[in-house]
Amino acid sequence: MTRRRHLAAELKRRIDDKTKPRGSLGRLEDLALQLGLIQGTLAPDVSSAAVYVFAADHGIAREGVSAYPQAVTAQMVRNFLQGGAAISVFAKLNGMRLRVVDAGVAQPCEAHPLLISRRIGAGTRSFLDAPAMTAAERDAALRAGAELMREARAGGIRVVALGDMGIGNTSSASVLTSLSVGTPLERCVGRAAQQRMVILVDGYIVSAALAIAADLEPAILRCCVFCTRSAEPGHDLLLARFQATPLLDLALRLGEGTGAALAYPLVKAAAAFLNEMATFESAQVSRKS
Amino acid sequence: MTRRRHLAAELKRRIDDKTKPRGSLGRLEDLALQLGLIQGTLAPDVSSAAVYVFAADHGIAREGVSAYPQAVTAQMVRNFLQGGAAISVFAKLNGMRLRVVDAGVAQPCEAHPLLISRRIGAGTRSFLDAPAMTAAERDAALRAGAELMREARAGGIRVVALGDMGIGNTSSASVLTSLSVGTPLERCVGRAAQQRMVILVDGYIVSAALAIAADLEPAILRCCVFCTRSAEPGHDLLLARFQATPLLDLALRLGEGTGAALAYPLVKAAAAFLNEMATFESAQVSRKS
Repeated sequence: MTRRRHLAAELKRRIDDKTKPRGSLGRLEDLALQLGLIQGTLAPDVSSAAVYVFAADHGIAREGVSAYPQAVTAQMVRNFLQGGAAISVFAKLNGMRLRVVDAGVAQPCEAHPLLISRRIGAGTRSFLDAPAMTAAERDAALRAGAELMREARAGGIRVVALGDMGIGNTSSASVLTSLSVGTPLERCVGRAAQQRMVILVDGYIVSAALAIAADLEPAILRCCVFCTRSAEPGHDLLLARFQATPLLDLALRLGEGTGAALAYPLVKAAAAFLNEMATFESAQVSRKS
Repeated sequence: MTRRRHLAAELKRRIDDKTKPRGSLGRLEDLALQLGLIQGTLAPDVSSAAVYVFAADHGIAREGVSAYPQAVTAQMVRNFLQGGAAISVFAKLNGMRLRVVDAGVAQPCEAHPLLISRRIGAGTRSFLDAPAMTAAERDAALRAGAELMREARAGGIRVVALGDMGIGNTSSASVLTSLSVGTPLERCVGRAAQQRMVILVDGYIVSAALAIAADLEPAILRCCVFCTRSAEPGHDLLLARFQATPLLDLALRLGEGTGAALAYPLVKAAAAFLNEMATFESAQVSRKS
């Protein structure tokens, strides 16, 4: 038996020993098992979580695909940082650290303690005219992501929720969804997976980005908790590919990491029942006859 | 325009003024509207919540309908009070006060600060032999429930999550579900509705009890947030009757109020975005072009 299978069996036994009918916590039981496997432990710790909102502009926005002007990307970054956006409110409510990554907003953002600058240009090109990013830009973006995850882990973060902001991003996600991706590239994404980090996957945009990461390193999917089924129809195609049923199905379509932040209390609950519930033995409760 | 419709329109306007595309917070937006209407305010306060777990024994358990012996009801009450049960863990995690109501456990429970004694006999009779409760017992149970809700409200509680414990309760709920109920009775249940209390409805058992309450006082349904779709098949019949889609669909079938406690962070999130998010004006974010 491999170490992973042994751990899974022991986690399953502990879950079944808790004072409840077997399986009665439903998908929370699967989640507890997954958390234990990701962290390689019988006692997963998900108490420290951070939301990373990656903001950037998309050249396609200049083609008029969005009802909002491109300036809104920078305006919303400021709103994130000032605490007025939905993700600001939800991250604070659920005890998650918030970081906003300027990954290439057209107008550079003013410095702020919560803002991390990892600019890959001043927005992408329109993919109607040319590839949205050069191969070098793409590689730089992937490296920046992996580096941020290493830094988060070094800072004690065990759970990262990934979010997005950028006018035109739904169009870009739709194109990514429809392409079959098979980029030859060094496996820098895989390192995030090796951090034993729990990755909370938000809605459509983050799932489209994950499709690329999973092509590069399929093992990353083991670390992913799918948090929300987006109201955007393309999301179902990606979820089917990942064979994933998200925790929440609330017709959210905001992005920003809001679905991931809203699902985080369920992740905490899964770890909490595994770590804190009594067993039939310890509570002296009779087992099934 | 009635006061309620006027309030609804103003709540809708405030929700739409927040820095997000209209409707993009999906069902959380409906929930925020409902919370405002229940409390009759533009700024709902859901910060103080309590879980009431009603524990009692069912005569039908003596017919062997459950895999667990009847003694488990009392054992689990002790487990709730000692902090080892799932509902103990989830209530603590989500900042909810826990109260356990002995509504008629076969073996009386030992006194405990979290235990409220409202015993209606020492468990019901088996409904195979006789009515499970007399009319007087039923009325006493309804009055005790209404009184507890008044006390909770007087103690500053704005959100109550209702839960259940009792070996054989799924059988009882199934019978209640299959009966059409039309009991003539004084409308003591309606008073809970008048408390402007947000009622978090757990799974199958609580929904079956609610079916009776809603027959007595249909207005109570306006105060109800349906929290979880139970894995028990009968629950779908009740949800269809209430025209309700619960917030969570995680195949839970434990009861105890666990589904309601797990959904409470979503209720807090709905109030938080309404109360705390910036508007397009205040954050100086451009509106849709």
